[in-house]
Amino acid sequence: MKAVGLVVEYNPFHNGHLYHVGKAKEDAGADVVIAVMSGSFLQRGEPALVSKHVRAEMALQAGVDLVVELPYGYSVQTAPYFAEGAVRLLTALQCGNLHFGSEEGDIDRFLQLLAFMKKNDHAYQQQTKEFLKKGYAYPRASAEAFALLHGSSTQLSLNEPNNILGFHYVQQIDAQASSMEPLTTLRIAASYHDENMGEGTIASATSIRKALLHKKNVEYVLPASTARLLDHYKQSHGHVHFWEDYFPYLKYQILTRTPAELKQIAECEEGLEYRLIETGRQANSFSDWLSRLKTKRYTKTRLQRLFVHLLTNTTKEEMATVRSGQENHYIRLLGMSETGKSYLNQNKKSFAFPIVTRESELKQFGALASLDQRATACYWLTKPGALHSEAMKQEFQVTPLLLKNS
Amino acid sequence: MKAVGLVVEYNPFHNGHLYHVGKAKEDAGADVVIAVMSGSFLQRGEPALVSKHVRAEMALQAGVDLVVELPYGYSVQTAPYFAEGAVRLLTALQCGNLHFGSEEGDIDRFLQLLAFMKKNDHAYQQQTKEFLKKGYAYPRASAEAFALLHGSSTQLSLNEPNNILGFHYVQQIDAQASSMEPLTTLRIAASYHDENMGEGTIASATSIRKALLHKKNVEYVLPASTARLLDHYKQSHGHVHFWEDYFPYLKYQILTRTPAELKQIAECEEGLEYRLIETGRQANSFSDWLSRLKTKRYTKTRLQRLFVHLLTNTTKEEMATVRSGQENHYIRLLGMSETGKSYLNQNKKSFAFPIVTRESELKQFGALASLDQRATACYWLTKPGALHSEAMKQEFQVTPLLLKNS
Repeated sequence: MKAVGLVVEYNPFHNGHLYHVGKAKEDAGADVVIAVMSGSFLQRGEPALVSKHVRAEMALQAGVDLVVELPYGYSVQTAPYFAEGAVRLLTALQCGNLHFGSEEGDIDRFLQLLAFMKKNDHAYQQQTKEFLKKGYAYPRASAEAFALLHGSSTQLSLNEPNNILGFHYVQQIDAQASSMEPLTTLRIAASYHDENMGEGTIASATSIRKALLHKKNVEYVLPASTARLLDHYKQSHGHVHFWEDYFPYLKYQILTRTPAELKQIAECEEGLEYRLIETGRQANSFSDWLSRLKTKRYTKTRLQRLFVHLLTNTTKEEMATVRSGQENHYIRLLGMSETGKSYLNQNKKSFAFPIVTRESELKQFGALASLDQRATACYWLTKPGALHSEAMKQEFQVTPLLLKNS
Repeated sequence: MKAVGLVVEYNPFHNGHLYHVGKAKEDAGADVVIAVMSGSFLQRGEPALVSKHVRAEMALQAGVDLVVELPYGYSVQTAPYFAEGAVRLLTALQCGNLHFGSEEGDIDRFLQLLAFMKKNDHAYQQQTKEFLKKGYAYPRASAEAFALLHGSSTQLSLNEPNNILGFHYVQQIDAQASSMEPLTTLRIAASYHDENMGEGTIASATSIRKALLHKKNVEYVLPASTARLLDHYKQSHGHVHFWEDYFPYLKYQILTRTPAELKQIAECEEGLEYRLIETGRQANSFSDWLSRLKTKRYTKTRLQRLFVHLLTNTTKEEMATVRSGQENHYIRLLGMSETGKSYLNQNKKSFAFPIVTRESELKQFGALASLDQRATACYWLTKPGALHSEAMKQEFQVTPLLLKNS
């Protein structure tokens, strides 16, 4: 059986994702679609709207065959680490291709850029540092360094978020000597940055989340199965998860921890601990806090990731352990179709990492696994009473979802 | 002007307290009544029903002339430290007498016991340790040790909570060579342990809190001014403070901190960090957690104090600093009558400690003051948004309440 791998967040799964699943399967000529998905917290430093189990079910209902979790230590990270973790898992799962959507759409341009960058990496790193010293935020510094060095020798734009991620996938496939071949397709209709939904049936996840926050109708841009699962979640949990739900805990952190303690938190650099305390004491809400904290130097995404680490009490030391690459890796299986199950049965003995489905099995995996457990425990703090205990039970005792053929 | 000192919590101020204020003034022949009052968290390890400012106003309305705050470092403590801090402050405020209510009612029996204990202290300590080794909780161990050594040579019962506290006041007056003379009066009508209110106009604070929790009428056991202030508080804040309000933060602590970190928390002894994590993960509410954690060895009060320290992130190291007695002390003034103001104006220059009314003045006072600030910040976590900022402003920027003569 031939497998194609996707790197996803599905927050929530929408019609654009549905298109991508079908296109990936077709482009790769694959029998099996495997998605590596961020868990409770996402790459841009946000809590997922709904639990990873429910997002996994959305994916299975829409044709994905296996959903595995990208560990927190890789998911709440800048693009290079995010890509590193995702490529590692998809390679371990023996995917033949990694397929991603991009604003570019032509894989050759990614490969050309890779060749160029391998030649000019040192100069690029130096130039990026120069721009950082000027006070640019990282994305701008790296884009400007790139433009300066690269000029117009390729047409791949690294100002586009999905091109950036895609480039890092290609780079990691090369760096890890993965046997996967990268494929890309042009993203259709909606740009990642679109804040508002249009009238078509494709909208960006960003615009869908915004509409959900304002309690607007989103059903027409979602597969029916996603809409049903989202509705059921809202009814059984009373809400979907937004940053404001976690504001009390963040405030609590800065009210009770010393600057020296806060400095241990991952991504708390350059005296941000003092600014966190000062702005946090005055903040009346999460969005108020974010706007008080934001400067030219720090992007919203960068600060949101800091807030995730503050919430989960993730330290620099823990992240350094993860980044060292010395941790034992595992495949945390969230759900599978019958096709996915067959694929696992045929191949799992030769996978590079063991498959993990329960908490008891996680204990041997050190920092990577303990971060996952802590992140999930924090995710459910929206309901600290009986629902929390129940959610943790589901997380760690229930076997992965198996979607039977209908 | 002659001053009499009281050690109080006023949680809330009730008719029994009103009686005590009058009796203390009369017994001491005093012009001024000074109350040292626990702040946001109380000796038995509970959040105060209403803020310290409102409780100070209750006291002023009922005839107290000066209300000063017993720092957190002394208030959330066992009886000996609680008494040490209170006696230190009342002595600094130049009270002629310390007046307390007791189940005994005769000061001579306290003084006789003190003389006996000074002779037999070593044997008493040893015997207490023996009983602790047997697994008795501290109150029982010390009471049994006392009974064994002391037999019937005095009739003062140390099984009664107000006798115990009173004895520690008497002991501290002696230990600190305070010039205060202790006085006591028989507590009337209600025992401290009474859990249910009767039909009379005197009820224990414990029974009043229980009635408040169950939203029953308590007005008939409160002075009209207390009832009005309590009512106003409920209307403006939407609630009075109970432990359940802080459950999410306690749960958060044990979900995100390592056993090694929890072990740093004051009163987290003998592996309690592991039991905290284990029972906390399963707990669906504060009362559920407390009942899961409770054993013969640990009294409810002992565990509740641990929970206060866990909430405020108070470490053993900080408490050791406070207990060393080397900290700079201060008189945190919460409120005064015009009589109280005159007393201050006449005497404050000769007070042993400076008077503090605002946050800016607290900074020079090290651990003692920073614990007070943190406790207050945590107390208001029931409303982490705009009300929190407002409460903190009141706490630290508003001058002490002055109750004008009507």
